[in-house]
Amino acid sequence: MRAVPSASSLERWSLQTILNAIGQAPLQFTVKGGEGVSPAGVKPIANIVIRDLPTLLKMMQNAEIGFGDGYAEGTVEVEGDLVGALEAAYRSIAMADSGNCVAGLASRWIERLRANTPRRSRENVHHHYDLTSDFYQLWLDPLLVYTCAYFPTPSITLEDAQIAKMDFVCRKLQLQPGEHVVEAGFGWGSLALHMAKRYGVKVTAFNLSHEQTVYARQRARREGLSNEVEFIEDDYRNISGKFDAFVSVGMLEHVGASHYKDLGGVINRSLSPTGRGLLHFIGRDRPAPLSVWIKKRIFPGAYTPSLREVTEVFEPWDLSIRDVENLRMHYAKTLEHWLERFERSAWQVSAMFDPKFVRTWRLYLAGSLVAFRVGTMQLFQITFARSDCQLLPWTRDHLYAQQPSREDDPKWTHVMS
Amino acid sequence: MRAVPSASSLERWSLQTILNAIGQAPLQFTVKGGEGVSPAGVKPIANIVIRDLPTLLKMMQNAEIGFGDGYAEGTVEVEGDLVGALEAAYRSIAMADSGNCVAGLASRWIERLRANTPRRSRENVHHHYDLTSDFYQLWLDPLLVYTCAYFPTPSITLEDAQIAKMDFVCRKLQLQPGEHVVEAGFGWGSLALHMAKRYGVKVTAFNLSHEQTVYARQRARREGLSNEVEFIEDDYRNISGKFDAFVSVGMLEHVGASHYKDLGGVINRSLSPTGRGLLHFIGRDRPAPLSVWIKKRIFPGAYTPSLREVTEVFEPWDLSIRDVENLRMHYAKTLEHWLERFERSAWQVSAMFDPKFVRTWRLYLAGSLVAFRVGTMQLFQITFARSDCQLLPWTRDHLYAQQPSREDDPKWTHVMS
Repeated sequence: MRAVPSASSLERWSLQTILNAIGQAPLQFTVKGGEGVSPAGVKPIANIVIRDLPTLLKMMQNAEIGFGDGYAEGTVEVEGDLVGALEAAYRSIAMADSGNCVAGLASRWIERLRANTPRRSRENVHHHYDLTSDFYQLWLDPLLVYTCAYFPTPSITLEDAQIAKMDFVCRKLQLQPGEHVVEAGFGWGSLALHMAKRYGVKVTAFNLSHEQTVYARQRARREGLSNEVEFIEDDYRNISGKFDAFVSVGMLEHVGASHYKDLGGVINRSLSPTGRGLLHFIGRDRPAPLSVWIKKRIFPGAYTPSLREVTEVFEPWDLSIRDVENLRMHYAKTLEHWLERFERSAWQVSAMFDPKFVRTWRLYLAGSLVAFRVGTMQLFQITFARSDCQLLPWTRDHLYAQQPSREDDPKWTHVMS
Repeated sequence: MRAVPSASSLERWSLQTILNAIGQAPLQFTVKGGEGVSPAGVKPIANIVIRDLPTLLKMMQNAEIGFGDGYAEGTVEVEGDLVGALEAAYRSIAMADSGNCVAGLASRWIERLRANTPRRSRENVHHHYDLTSDFYQLWLDPLLVYTCAYFPTPSITLEDAQIAKMDFVCRKLQLQPGEHVVEAGFGWGSLALHMAKRYGVKVTAFNLSHEQTVYARQRARREGLSNEVEFIEDDYRNISGKFDAFVSVGMLEHVGASHYKDLGGVINRSLSPTGRGLLHFIGRDRPAPLSVWIKKRIFPGAYTPSLREVTEVFEPWDLSIRDVENLRMHYAKTLEHWLERFERSAWQVSAMFDPKFVRTWRLYLAGSLVAFRVGTMQLFQITFARSDCQLLPWTRDHLYAQQPSREDDPKWTHVMS
């Protein structure tokens, strides 16, 4: 006959199970009022306090959802540094998972089954991007650029890094005055307006978010750019016309793996014979499911693909990949800025939303920061062109020159003249 | 009753069939002594003269093999510019083929069935690379670098461009004095010796070619680098030990599509925790069979993959793609130099080999030049690292700085310190 375990030893066993699920990360787990459990022989980075038994049970069923929802609801508390605790957990999980490709392969096929139809895309976009812009203004840069910034040096401000990112994208696209650019997913319109203002191009830009479209149109009017930039509230699949460049910054994550060939088809039919383009998106080193909590609470319908998966945008069509840059650490740095600003404005966010909302967003920003820092997530910029595009720079050094002076530079040449 | 066609109308019909097979390129085809056939309304770039009926029949069966073998044997002559004629043909074929993915998909699976076993790899390598180095010395640069050069500006010499390429590779690898590099496929040893001499690293290098290994070892002795560089005549699959960097320039083309995961496994087991690497190879925008003539007469066992196919090297392992650069136009320029030097030395090549050999190599060099110029072929450099590699530059501008001065540069940082 085995002895019936005591309540406290059941608790210990439960906490050990959670600890195993996150690869024995150097963290202490405690049920409120009870004794802490942590991996033997290491000093825990933080103490995760679980306030009640329902939360403990939820975490045992699914550590990620249980922790995420518990943190949001306040039934899980992190005593110590949230970012440090998440970083420890991510690293341990990555170590425990390394070489495990089965989950990745499975996720790839599950993703294909969940098609982002135009209607579902609209609902998904509404969930996140139709939050009032007042909220995003509290912690984004003043131009409201809600994608990875580019830090030529890590010490520059977020404001400068977002402008540097927009210039970097324009340089990669080699925009010429008078050209016509199509943008898929324009956010609050910053890149479209920047391209028009600084590079003298016309822009036609698409976005499913009603709030963002209204906001972007107002900005265009205020800046006197309504003739140069047209903001259209519509699905990227409805893009029509011919353009010199195609650009999409931070939309591919919402396209869904089963629609990459369609997106490529849109690009292919939209680009002129000398057309080129750029995709900027969050990716992975290998196919893997997006965090279930992020997908459930933050970004429904989102998927972050590996480079292999993304080649489906290009390979079926007359498109040639010219350049791929992994800017992962730039997103970690961007998120450091966002999280810091979010914390500074938390009291204002609290006045706009409930405490659960604040904690949900804090966890989302902190978790994303850590995912880029430890390499769970990557940020890819892919530059592409028609296979026979004649407008090719010999090298990429024009991206790093102090002053872009294309016209006088002998390295810029119509190669196949 | 239909009239029996005359000999000359049969000839015309045959030539039209060939012209259709190459997408009605602006070329004239003539059976010697007969009347020329060319697309209506265009001035032909060159006249392709077929000397006898067996060659005409062979070209009708397979335009590429028939033309290639006929050109090599002298039963097909090109009156006019060979490069111009090939360029016209490649462009027309590309136009006619665009959107036809079936051939590509089929080729992918056929490639997988033809495994490059260690024994077959050895035979394939012998076929091309064990030709006497005296021959390659006639038309390569003095260092015998038989891969795509890098032209910071297109006007520099081939010699300078090959040195620039080796430096570019070393910069992308961020080599540090005292580190240990493994090289898969070392050619005549130039890059290994360059890395040891200029960057202070130790190199262990693998190659299946006996001639090249003997030659490279002699060079290492002559340059006093035998302690720093070890040249091993063996298959990349037999690489053992741990290294700070993995580099392979121009070998992937000979690995074969069914072995990419194996190559990734070799890289994965060879790299230290801060390891990084570079693959430099000829690729395609989408899977497509290698020219049958090139495969039969020049590079048995070779295959030039699309980026999608190459991700199989990385995705199954703990490897993260940091940077992909397409240097296609640099290979076109390299081949212009090689072809020009080859033509200048043709009389010396004739003294070493028979006329068929000279014509075969002329066609191979001219055809390759055109393939890169029109975009049939691409040249990719992929830089990769462990997912959690801490030695990451913030940007790529160090590749373009006049003087690499890593130690004092604040942009170089151990990001996750």
